[in-house]
Amino acid sequence: MSKKERLIFLPLGGAGEIGMNAYVYGWGAPGRERLILVDLGVTFPDMDTTPGVSLIMPDISWLEANAERLEAIFITHAHEDHVGAIGRLHSRLKAPVHARPFTAWHARRKMEEAGANPDAIRPARPWPEKIEAGPFTVSFLPLSHSIPESSGLVIDTPAGRLVHTGDFKLDETPVVGEPFDESLWREVAAEGGIHALICDSTNVFSDRPGRSEASIGAELVKLVKSAEQMVVATTFASNVARLQQLAAAGVAAGRKVCLLGRAMQRMVLAAGECGLLSDFPETIPVEDARDLPRSELMLLVTGSQGERRAASAQLARGKYLGMQMAEGDLFLFSSKTIPGNERAVARLLNAYSEMGVEVVAESDLYHVSGHANRPDLMRVHEMLDPDIVIPMHGEHRHLSEHAALARAGGRASMVVVNGAVCDLTGEAPHVVEHVEAERVYLDGSRLIGALDGVVRDRIRLALNGHVMVSLILEDDAALGEPWVEIMGLPETGASRAPLAEVLEEELGRFLSRAAAGLLADDDRLEEELRKLARRAAQEEIGRKPEVTVVISRLE
Amino acid sequence: MSKKERLIFLPLGGAGEIGMNAYVYGWGAPGRERLILVDLGVTFPDMDTTPGVSLIMPDISWLEANAERLEAIFITHAHEDHVGAIGRLHSRLKAPVHARPFTAWHARRKMEEAGANPDAIRPARPWPEKIEAGPFTVSFLPLSHSIPESSGLVIDTPAGRLVHTGDFKLDETPVVGEPFDESLWREVAAEGGIHALICDSTNVFSDRPGRSEASIGAELVKLVKSAEQMVVATTFASNVARLQQLAAAGVAAGRKVCLLGRAMQRMVLAAGECGLLSDFPETIPVEDARDLPRSELMLLVTGSQGERRAASAQLARGKYLGMQMAEGDLFLFSSKTIPGNERAVARLLNAYSEMGVEVVAESDLYHVSGHANRPDLMRVHEMLDPDIVIPMHGEHRHLSEHAALARAGGRASMVVVNGAVCDLTGEAPHVVEHVEAERVYLDGSRLIGALDGVVRDRIRLALNGHVMVSLILEDDAALGEPWVEIMGLPETGASRAPLAEVLEEELGRFLSRAAAGLLADDDRLEEELRKLARRAAQEEIGRKPEVTVVISRLE
Repeated sequence: MSKKERLIFLPLGGAGEIGMNAYVYGWGAPGRERLILVDLGVTFPDMDTTPGVSLIMPDISWLEANAERLEAIFITHAHEDHVGAIGRLHSRLKAPVHARPFTAWHARRKMEEAGANPDAIRPARPWPEKIEAGPFTVSFLPLSHSIPESSGLVIDTPAGRLVHTGDFKLDETPVVGEPFDESLWREVAAEGGIHALICDSTNVFSDRPGRSEASIGAELVKLVKSAEQMVVATTFASNVARLQQLAAAGVAAGRKVCLLGRAMQRMVLAAGECGLLSDFPETIPVEDARDLPRSELMLLVTGSQGERRAASAQLARGKYLGMQMAEGDLFLFSSKTIPGNERAVARLLNAYSEMGVEVVAESDLYHVSGHANRPDLMRVHEMLDPDIVIPMHGEHRHLSEHAALARAGGRASMVVVNGAVCDLTGEAPHVVEHVEAERVYLDGSRLIGALDGVVRDRIRLALNGHVMVSLILEDDAALGEPWVEIMGLPETGASRAPLAEVLEEELGRFLSRAAAGLLADDDRLEEELRKLARRAAQEEIGRKPEVTVVISRLE
Repeated sequence: MSKKERLIFLPLGGAGEIGMNAYVYGWGAPGRERLILVDLGVTFPDMDTTPGVSLIMPDISWLEANAERLEAIFITHAHEDHVGAIGRLHSRLKAPVHARPFTAWHARRKMEEAGANPDAIRPARPWPEKIEAGPFTVSFLPLSHSIPESSGLVIDTPAGRLVHTGDFKLDETPVVGEPFDESLWREVAAEGGIHALICDSTNVFSDRPGRSEASIGAELVKLVKSAEQMVVATTFASNVARLQQLAAAGVAAGRKVCLLGRAMQRMVLAAGECGLLSDFPETIPVEDARDLPRSELMLLVTGSQGERRAASAQLARGKYLGMQMAEGDLFLFSSKTIPGNERAVARLLNAYSEMGVEVVAESDLYHVSGHANRPDLMRVHEMLDPDIVIPMHGEHRHLSEHAALARAGGRASMVVVNGAVCDLTGEAPHVVEHVEAERVYLDGSRLIGALDGVVRDRIRLALNGHVMVSLILEDDAALGEPWVEIMGLPETGASRAPLAEVLEEELGRFLSRAAAGLLADDDRLEEELRKLARRAAQEEIGRKPEVTVVISRLE
């Protein structure tokens, strides 16, 4: 324990995936570092790998076991993959949570929803204000992204200054919120230089410089003006700048603007309460919208990713709060489809197409990304001139590409994945140990481990169907026939008799010949019946189902 | 039945989706039309909507009921979405199947695999050869696509000439197979004009003219030459021209070429046997490849869509047939990711990234589409100058956009979706009736209807988990406690006791108080126990599982 003090970086989420961000920094003697946590986000389940799961969160058990060493938590911005888990996990960490007001607004709400104390959330002011957290001094550095008040963190440590970018782009005209301010970044870098840059990697494969939010405003106006009937537009609800531009385009085209979907109303409310919306056009409630001519109306709706319950999907299925799309309307996706959501979005596009609605989707004219592209990343590397670059916020391929880019610029860099403890003290970052950093699922109201097998069983049920066998034994002899129920399997098989009956007969025949020793042994009997049921099903329907055997013994 | 004879078009699959093509044409008095079928393909299941399903096929029950009116089946090309269902469904239709030799090779194989008679498949020669089929005279019109011998059909009917394009692009240098030959198309159009064009819509949203297969050859050579270690490339196995170009690039870079994956070997075998591969470079067996230096080797592997069992995925997981990727290797996706497969492909990209393999993916330099783009479609409309254009091979939004494009060119056009019977006789196509045209699932060895509820139950199991309750009654009284098994649910709930035990106690308590009348009524008792189990689970774990109750009564 007398070893030299060190600076460590440990991602618990976000390094090897886009989502579920949670990054630990520590300073101190090995095993006794004082810690801070940056972000505590969620990622979203899918039917392929996590059916029935509500939310996916990082496994913070290592941090929980070391909670007394945790000085503070910092949240960079209010996207779900950065703040989404704070409500459910904070009680296990307890440290104070610092965030700028708009982010704090959302974090407080997460705490309230989870029954935690919202006063743990402390609104912070930006650079040059500083927050002390054990050996760290932390400052929120305003930068531009696709949500208001997104911030990087300037983290001063005994080993030098770190910049943790959070999610960002270089936008000098972001419409809402603080523009990218090169002089600010240079000021941060000038005070003794940057030891390490921990940097967003999302768009490292995008070769052209990113475009400004403001660049699409005129195109939006042109499009909305060209529409003859109702205009409906969707984007991420949290992209308040986009909402403002869409609404402004509606007003410029002489339309009344109506927000549909709870997330959208909440975001505009939050931005308003935080004083970020001085220019937001007036909107009307949906009750008023219903009475207006279609040509005078523009709806801004939730559901740019095809989410089943969002306003966009409800409109695709028919009426939503009395509103309905019709032939000649225009639907604009002012958004990009996140990989994995393509089919859900295509279902919307086709539903609108069937209604005769004109759809504009996946067009660069009406959407810009919120992340720095490859040339922007290079510019930041040069601007801050760090000794070390550690890529974050990316799948392995993004991190790997970003590390190569940094090394090509003559900086030390390496891929540090979830669970790897990286020593950042010297000039050469290196991984010194690994901690458990799996995933935790919110499943209904329970938290379960990704490796608990619960979800694996559900996937098996979905792929294979289920056979339930129940059998009553008395004095080690079968009492009557076994009873079989099936679920998720064809009713009849190759023999054209009901599958359940065929299985009952097979199992009954087997039992009538079974040795007394087997009938006396629950485990072996269960296993034999399972094997037999699977084999018989394979013959009848060409698949081996999951089988549950329940043996009841009468005394 | 004395009504005027008419020409009808009836898609049973492929109109409203990309996949599962099956188009019926008919001529005769209403209800007595003589019929031909064009293509009989499959589409592929996904975990979201069809977990556990092996293949999806069109519902041909209408055609089966009218099989005595079916004169012939024509297969345009050997892609699975055009030929994949012929083996399993032919016995219900019986008509002779015409296809050009390469397509026939595959169709015969499908028949053999399904235990059907491969001699039903009749190899056909191209235009100007003609095949009589009742009132129709049909000719295979060679055109370019992404598989050898793809063909359109020239269908002469008493109401005029139809051109059914199948899948196509306008490629004058397709590397393997017949080039697009404008004079041939003009010749077809010149003989009395085209009454209706039934036309591929896949790429109607692609604004630039399509590029030739030959255009990427030099880039492939440049890329492979630049690689220092092993090169591994994947594309659709059926894209024989691409395989040839990839292999040629390998040879040009001084490498030995090895094919990995059964589909790839089968395609090259088929193309060879059909005399289509005069220029295909020599390949070596994998046994020889293992001994070569990595820098002298190029592998062509299956699995461009991230399929779990393909060679690409096996290599991502480790060794495959003794081959293994290593740091410094190059992996090329000479392909486009089909919407819905993004996550599977990303898993490969990240696995390779972890190995230190350089990956080139989604680059236009190394891939061209096999479908006609919007300007190509316009060119075909003008070249053939049909009175009517009916879009096919597309989701609704593609069909709708293609119809608008045709109407903008002054032609009659409409969207005809699966199950719609369209009268093409006069100048104005119109839908006259609808037939059942759902989907059929190959599920294990059984065919089940999409609406049978089997797959819906499997999705419910995956989303909700399963509780099985078994209960023994004697003389209308519970014999002991009910027994509960759970699958796909958290082991313990809010009360921290095992979920199964909590449910057993709840149900036991209920039974001990239940009225005799309820205990005597299986249906009501089952329903009450199910409701109770769901309610108790909701309290414990925050979700309502599927519940199966088995009641056994002792006599």
